[in-house]
Amino acid sequence: RRRGIPEAILAEGKTPAEVAALATTAVDTTGRALVTRADEATAAAVASAVGDAGADATVDRDDRVGTVVVHADGFEPPSLDAAVAVVTAGTGDAPVAGEAAVVAREIGAAVDRIDDVGVANLDRILDQVDRVREADAVVVAAGREGALPTVVAGLVDAPVIALPVSTGYGVGGEGVAALEGALQSCSVLTTVNVDAGFVAGAQAGLIARAVDAARTE
Amino acid sequence: RRRGIPEAILAEGKTPAEVAALATTAVDTTGRALVTRADEATAAAVASAVGDAGADATVDRDDRVGTVVVHADGFEPPSLDAAVAVVTAGTGDAPVAGEAAVVAREIGAAVDRIDDVGVANLDRILDQVDRVREADAVVVAAGREGALPTVVAGLVDAPVIALPVSTGYGVGGEGVAALEGALQSCSVLTTVNVDAGFVAGAQAGLIARAVDAARTE
Amino acid sequence: RRRGIPEAILAEGKTPAEVAALATTAVDTTGRALVTRADEATAAAVASAVGDAGADATVDRDDRVGTVVVHADGFEPPSLDAAVAVVTAGTGDAPVAGEAAVVAREIGAAVDRIDDVGVANLDRILDQVDRVREADAVVVAAGREGALPTVVAGLVDAPVIALPVSTGYGVGGEGVAALEGALQSCSVLTTVNVDAGFVAGAQAGLIARAVDAARTE
Amino acid sequence: RRRGIPEAILAEGKTPAEVAALATTAVDTTGRALVTRADEATAAAVASAVGDAGADATVDRDDRVGTVVVHADGFEPPSLDAAVAVVTAGTGDAPVAGEAAVVAREIGAAVDRIDDVGVANLDRILDQVDRVREADAVVVAAGREGALPTVVAGLVDAPVIALPVSTGYGVGGEGVAALEGALQSCSVLTTVNVDAGFVAGAQAGLIARAVDAARTE
Amino acid sequence: RRRGIPEAILAEGKTPAEVAALATTAVDTTGRALVTRADEATAAAVASAVGDAGADATVDRDDRVGTVVVHADGFEPPSLDAAVAVVTAGTGDAPVAGEAAVVAREIGAAVDRIDDVGVANLDRILDQVDRVREADAVVVAAGREGALPTVVAGLVDAPVIALPVSTGYGVGGEGVAALEGALQSCSVLTTVNVDAGFVAGAQAGLIARAVDAARTE
Amino acid sequence: RRRGIPEAILAEGKTPAEVAALATTAVDTTGRALVTRADEATAAAVASAVGDAGADATVDRDDRVGTVVVHADGFEPPSLDAAVAVVTAGTGDAPVAGEAAVVAREIGAAVDRIDDVGVANLDRILDQVDRVREADAVVVAAGREGALPTVVAGLVDAPVIALPVSTGYGVGGEGVAALEGALQSCSVLTTVNVDAGFVAGAQAGLIARAVDAARTE
Amino acid sequence: RRRGIPEAILAEGKTPAEVAALATTAVDTTGRALVTRADEATAAAVASAVGDAGADATVDRDDRVGTVVVHADGFEPPSLDAAVAVVTAGTGDAPVAGEAAVVAREIGAAVDRIDDVGVANLDRILDQVDRVREADAVVVAAGREGALPTVVAGLVDAPVIALPVSTGYGVGGEGVAALEGALQSCSVLTTVNVDAGFVAGAQAGLIARAVDAARTE
Amino acid sequence: RRRGIPEAILAEGKTPAEVAALATTAVDTTGRALVTRADEATAAAVASAVGDAGADATVDRDDRVGTVVVHADGFEPPSLDAAVAVVTAGTGDAPVAGEAAVVAREIGAAVDRIDDVGVANLDRILDQVDRVREADAVVVAAGREGALPTVVAGLVDAPVIALPVSTGYGVGGEGVAALEGALQSCSVLTTVNVDAGFVAGAQAGLIARAVDAARTE
Ligand SMILES: Nc1ncnc2c1ncn2[C@@H]1O[C@H](COP(=O)(O)O)[C@@H](O)[C@H]1O
Ligand SMILES: Nc1ncnc2c1ncn2[C@@H]1O[C@H](COP(=O)(O)O)[C@@H](O)[C@H]1O
Ligand SMILES: Nc1ncnc2c1ncn2[C@@H]1O[C@H](COP(=O)(O)O)[C@@H](O)[C@H]1O
Ligand SMILES: Nc1ncnc2c1ncn2[C@@H]1O[C@H](COP(=O)(O)O)[C@@H](O)[C@H]1O
Ligand SMILES: [Mg+2]
Ligand SMILES: [Mg+2]
Ligand SMILES: [Mg+2]
Ligand SMILES: [Mg+2]
Ligand SMILES: [Mg+2]
Ligand SMILES: [Mg+2]
Ligand SMILES: [Mg+2]
Ligand SMILES: [Mg+2]
Repeated sequence: RRRGIPEAILAEGKTPAEVAALATTAVDTTGRALVTRADEATAAAVASAVGDAGADATVDRDDRVGTVVVHADGFEPPSLDAAVAVVTAGTGDAPVAGEAAVVAREIGAAVDRIDDVGVANLDRILDQVDRVREADAVVVAAGREGALPTVVAGLVDAPVIALPVSTGYGVGGEGVAALEGALQSCSVLTTVNVDAGFVAGAQAGLIARAVDAARTE
Repeated sequence: RRRGIPEAILAEGKTPAEVAALATTAVDTTGRALVTRADEATAAAVASAVGDAGADATVDRDDRVGTVVVHADGFEPPSLDAAVAVVTAGTGDAPVAGEAAVVAREIGAAVDRIDDVGVANLDRILDQVDRVREADAVVVAAGREGALPTVVAGLVDAPVIALPVSTGYGVGGEGVAALEGALQSCSVLTTVNVDAGFVAGAQAGLIARAVDAARTE
Repeated sequence: RRRGIPEAILAEGKTPAEVAALATTAVDTTGRALVTRADEATAAAVASAVGDAGADATVDRDDRVGTVVVHADGFEPPSLDAAVAVVTAGTGDAPVAGEAAVVAREIGAAVDRIDDVGVANLDRILDQVDRVREADAVVVAAGREGALPTVVAGLVDAPVIALPVSTGYGVGGEGVAALEGALQSCSVLTTVNVDAGFVAGAQAGLIARAVDAARTE
Repeated sequence: RRRGIPEAILAEGKTPAEVAALATTAVDTTGRALVTRADEATAAAVASAVGDAGADATVDRDDRVGTVVVHADGFEPPSLDAAVAVVTAGTGDAPVAGEAAVVAREIGAAVDRIDDVGVANLDRILDQVDRVREADAVVVAAGREGALPTVVAGLVDAPVIALPVSTGYGVGGEGVAALEGALQSCSVLTTVNVDAGFVAGAQAGLIARAVDAARTE
Repeated sequence: RRRGIPEAILAEGKTPAEVAALATTAVDTTGRALVTRADEATAAAVASAVGDAGADATVDRDDRVGTVVVHADGFEPPSLDAAVAVVTAGTGDAPVAGEAAVVAREIGAAVDRIDDVGVANLDRILDQVDRVREADAVVVAAGREGALPTVVAGLVDAPVIALPVSTGYGVGGEGVAALEGALQSCSVLTTVNVDAGFVAGAQAGLIARAVDAARTE
Repeated sequence: RRRGIPEAILAEGKTPAEVAALATTAVDTTGRALVTRADEATAAAVASAVGDAGADATVDRDDRVGTVVVHADGFEPPSLDAAVAVVTAGTGDAPVAGEAAVVAREIGAAVDRIDDVGVANLDRILDQVDRVREADAVVVAAGREGALPTVVAGLVDAPVIALPVSTGYGVGGEGVAALEGALQSCSVLTTVNVDAGFVAGAQAGLIARAVDAARTE
Repeated sequence: RRRGIPEAILAEGKTPAEVAALATTAVDTTGRALVTRADEATAAAVASAVGDAGADATVDRDDRVGTVVVHADGFEPPSLDAAVAVVTAGTGDAPVAGEAAVVAREIGAAVDRIDDVGVANLDRILDQVDRVREADAVVVAAGREGALPTVVAGLVDAPVIALPVSTGYGVGGEGVAALEGALQSCSVLTTVNVDAGFVAGAQAGLIARAVDAARTE
Repeated sequence: RRRGIPEAILAEGKTPAEVAALATTAVDTTGRALVTRADEATAAAVASAVGDAGADATVDRDDRVGTVVVHADGFEPPSLDAAVAVVTAGTGDAPVAGEAAVVAREIGAAVDRIDDVGVANLDRILDQVDRVREADAVVVAAGREGALPTVVAGLVDAPVIALPVSTGYGVGGEGVAALEGALQSCSVLTTVNVDAGFVAGAQAGLIARAVDAARTE
């Protein structure tokens, strides 16, 4: 697959049967499949379709995150000499951050999750900053006012990708303030759309691939 | 004047002559006047009208901030036993913060200005946090992504008022992201509209008045 | 807990079990918990978890408002020498105003509820203005066109906090006109986001704390 | 002219020469012309074109409001047995209210202007309410948070037309909050667009015509 | 009741029991009640509560429109010597137009419904124009692009009130294009918010009252 | 040039010298050039650059519309056996409609301009409907509430293209209501962006080309 | 029926019984009916109502697309000598594109569906470009960033109609980015509203009719 | 300086004297300065202030792009073993792309500019794809519908950063459609705000630094 990004199937708006069919085709043709935004029925349909296909594929579900990862028997997952940090401000950011982490891992990056370090209590992120500095690329998931990506990008050298999360209500809610905060940030960073964990994780993975390739040149 | 807030004349959309007439009336009837958003021609017209009126009024202009303060001869400005901190993230926030400071001072508060402590470099605000903690009410002016009010409200006990500033371009620019960030803040704070320095300073002044009254009960 | 604001758990987007776990932890570590936006299942889960924990904690539910307050046995609630008025325009504003009242009360303020004084019939607010003037801080909840906070701030000396409510349909509905009315008010006031009763009540509580501290200095 | 509304020429976006030509044509064919949103050059061009046409037309300019009214010699202006009140919240509302007043007067209504009765000081409108109650239709011009139309419609029996004015800055500025406030009003009223003084005055004039016709049946 | 507008209870966001209680109180104190936006359960609750109250009140439900009208035994409904036309563009506009018609009728106007005369087929409105011209005030309900109010206001002398309806999808859908079309209309008219049938009907009723009073002076 | 659409140079945001250089290149390589949105300085620069180039090119400026058309000596303009009607609601629509007409003519269509037939006076469009029916494609330019495209599409068989014009102020102004009206139209039509005369004229020209090709097959 | 467009009944917001009644009336009066956005219950109600009517009408349902086409016994569907291509970027665009295809077919065009040629993989559209060039009019359905219509319009001579699809989440989601992309396209094309498959197909059908008429003149 | 990003001074909203002072300070303390969005007066003020300071600093102005780069005598600019491609769709994108290129170059990357490859003519980008594939990070600047970043990200392996440009008028104009297109892209990419050339170039530079560091480990 182009760029090492796994064939991803967005389950939203598709029936379980449709998703299962697309996933088995992806496994057959590319050796693996990644389903995102799957509810439990869809995840079950994928697992059962893969089982029916008779192959000894491994199926890895995360129902909170909504992902299903399928590896064909004998599929050799890539393993890069490069690390991605996935940082969250609060518990509401976990599912979206989880989507980013799964994709980065499938691209082969070593993923480090650093959770609940939102800026309302600065000590938390200051305590973890050395860990974040280990990464070659950093994804920062935050909803509401979304201040964390700006703070993190002021503390690390690696490229930072903001991942706005659709928390918050009223004006600027549903992740809009968090996205606009990323677009207006006084620190250098780029952003993806609200809840676009897949895109953030994949872009971090592409950076990790470039770094890995340079390391192993 | 009700609540101790000086009669304020918003110069925008009025001719210099109109503003000057309103200001001299305010001085005659209340002992002082506060003009906001005055350009140089308007400030000059006010100063000259006050001079023509023959009284020994004092005129205090700040052309960067756009304010003109006039005190009639013998006007006794209030002096409260309470302090307001006015904090800015960067230099672009200075004029709007200045408007807030002038109003709070006219209400009688002791005003402390703490500048250039934006979150892209956390050391700056951490260095000043003890000074901010001295205040009975805190105004925090910030544009672009407007993360500073959230961070400050996480560090102090006093009520914090966010003052979004119309910096920033593109989507979320002109202070919109900063305002929405205040509305979505994970810390407890209230907000005023973009660039509404007068309102932020006046509300901080009202809190200072309440504290002063309690202290002197 | 910082600023005397109780640990608040926003139930929206969390399962009853998760909320119950967070609440019992908060009770264990801080002596109390405040759950907001809880539906009946969540409130029941919290009550039952607290009971199971065996302690003689008191549980105070308001299902219309969506709050659950838990006090550990022996928890000494703060009691401030300062008052907060919570004013509503109509019956649709009651749940959101209720959230503000609960928080202010937990911070220790004496809370006075003044209801159904919307501006379509001016006599109602004029009849109650002396009662509102007793308070050290005033929260005014109003939806639709949200004119009440402006009128109240013109009648009292204490700081006023607008609490826009998500009533109203069509353009400017869901509280947007009410929020924008607060941002544009000709009277001095600050605002919180639409339906942010928790924030309005907490800010009023912070002002009450400052006044109480000054009174008891 | 249909409905008794004078032929109105919106000067914005037209050259002085074009406006003058349209105005003289209107005078020739209907006996009068009403130019709105004219700057001084345009008003002068109209006056001079009418003069050149040699007729003894009367020209009535209001440069603050931006209107020019031309009556051909011998034009008999209508005179209705019905009254329109035009109410403003503050001085910034005067030009737009003036446009409404001119149109209503040209339709033949008796127009009563009641100024500076904004809700930040309720005494002002309460002092004038008997005068407003004299009118058969009421136009209420207000900018910023636009609370006045709602308050007036709660005080009078006649139909009220809100006329939002493009004052105010930041979010909800330029009359948007005032328009949305009219759309969400808890009192019964209808509205026109921001700054649409011509439409508000014409609709009030149509109501006055209907009442006059009924009175004189 | 002020202005002859019946006490109206918006059922949305209230429980059937709450609505029924408010309605019986209104009947007791004013002789009638008007419930809007009632679903079937609410309408039934009102009917049954009125029955239980034992009085021989009449209950008039229109489940498509969502209204319930209750008249106490012996209540003398007003009857005005003035007419209101309620015009619709298509079948989707019927429920909202129905709300307007019920209110106008309760105020005492003679109401004429003229349906399905949208501008995509001009013959229909041209065929009905004489009937529309009979009215003293005209309400025009239209969704989607909302062109009909503009066309009608170009054809009649009476005041026209646009009533935008929340049909249409995509950009400008949910009545937004129809409302903006009313605000931008090249014809003279005023507007109410999207789906605000109550307000449109009440304003038309106020005009009818004024005309009736003039007729009967 | 692809599709027979002339090489068009949008002058906005370019210096006169840059536009002149692009135009002479286009004439050299394609035999003609079409400049849109040119102010007088730019139009003059193009005319002079073409003159300097020494060729006997013809230059056709329309300063009201902002177009400059240059044909190299000997350039054979296309001439199609197909007609485009360009219809306007009012005089404010003329410049934008003019841009559409110029482009359609350059593509080779016979263009018929039908002006000032806005829906506030239905007789005008009804008087011209036979003329509009002659066309193979119809462009309808209208600003403010933009009702005319819907009415025209209800009267003719040919494809209709709405061309919203940036007239109107307040909410829905600057052509937004007109564009949304086209998107929500109850008649079948497609639309271009606000003021996009070039695109509307070019699409009408493409339809004329298809019809011409079919006629001459 | 005017313009050869079948009488279309939008099922959304109507009960199955209402739709069935409208459909049978259309069949009786025009020989056919086209129901759009029908769920299964509605489609079944239409089929059964047509059956009950006893006539040997044919009923053609597409439940994925939501259309029901009914032809009365002996109805002679039009057949044009002209072709429409309906192109999709991805599988999410299929239902909306299907609506366009059904309408174009009912108008009599030969319809060619070309699927899954989104621009993330350019080879797909480049492989199919000769097929697209066969058509007399082209509808291009795309959601998310909606780049495909711009690319297709750069590759073909026939008029292109963009059909934005309501896929995508976050800012610019629900088809908004796709619609704005069509409005801003650097290629010449016109657009319909988000998901307006009926309008896109009908406009393409009108172009096909014009071409067919020219061919058969 | 942190992350190797030069101290950047945004000239917008500052006087020439202020910018010159900030620039000389930056040169004194960090060895260089980068001014962005400078008009000619500001650029001249910087050049002259640096000259006055007497040092043999080099000053590099690009007045079209609005940048001034100052290097102190003896400043050793970084030089990375990594390349950044900066791609534009059309000539309107050049200034913003230029800002990105200057920053990336100052960080030390080898920068390759690839211009005028917009998607309305696919051959252009297909011809240049091998050149783009040489880069370690790719910035793609595009306005209007902004389709180019999506197409490029479908053709290369390196991380792509979209740089939306504020071209385009009407709905979705001023870069909004281009930004939303990047947020909704079917290809993997991240984005910066409209016209944020500085941020795009700096992020690309950070990736280049990471790759360079890996290469030279
Ligand atoms: N800079 C400002 N921003 C917001 N409100 C202001 C400002 N200056 C004055 N005001 C308020 O606006 C009210 C009306 O101002 P005016 O338009 O001068 O009558 C004053 O009484 C103040 O309460
Ligand atoms: N109803 C509410 N509205 C707004 N903020 C709240 C509300 N309830 C709790 N919060 C705040 O949101 C923070 C995060 O909540 P949580 O998502 O539970 O971690 C809490 O610490 C409170 O400061
Ligand atoms: N007035 C206009 N409105 C919209 N698009 C235009 C206009 N004039 C030219 N164009 C298109 O914009 C493209 C790019 O223009 P340019 O920026 O000059 O390269 C041209 O090839 C035309 O297709
Ligand atoms: N053209 C630009 N666009 C966006 N951010 C910028 C630009 N130029 C400088 N900056 C950033 O804005 C920060 C604050 O700039 P200043 O307002 O000059 O203090 C700088 O440190 C840069 O990170
Ligand atoms: Mg956050
Ligand atoms: Mg900031
Ligand atoms: Mg209210
Ligand atoms: Mg007002
Ligand atoms: Mg309609
Ligand atoms: Mg029009
Ligand atoms: Mg697409
Ligand atoms: Mg582009």
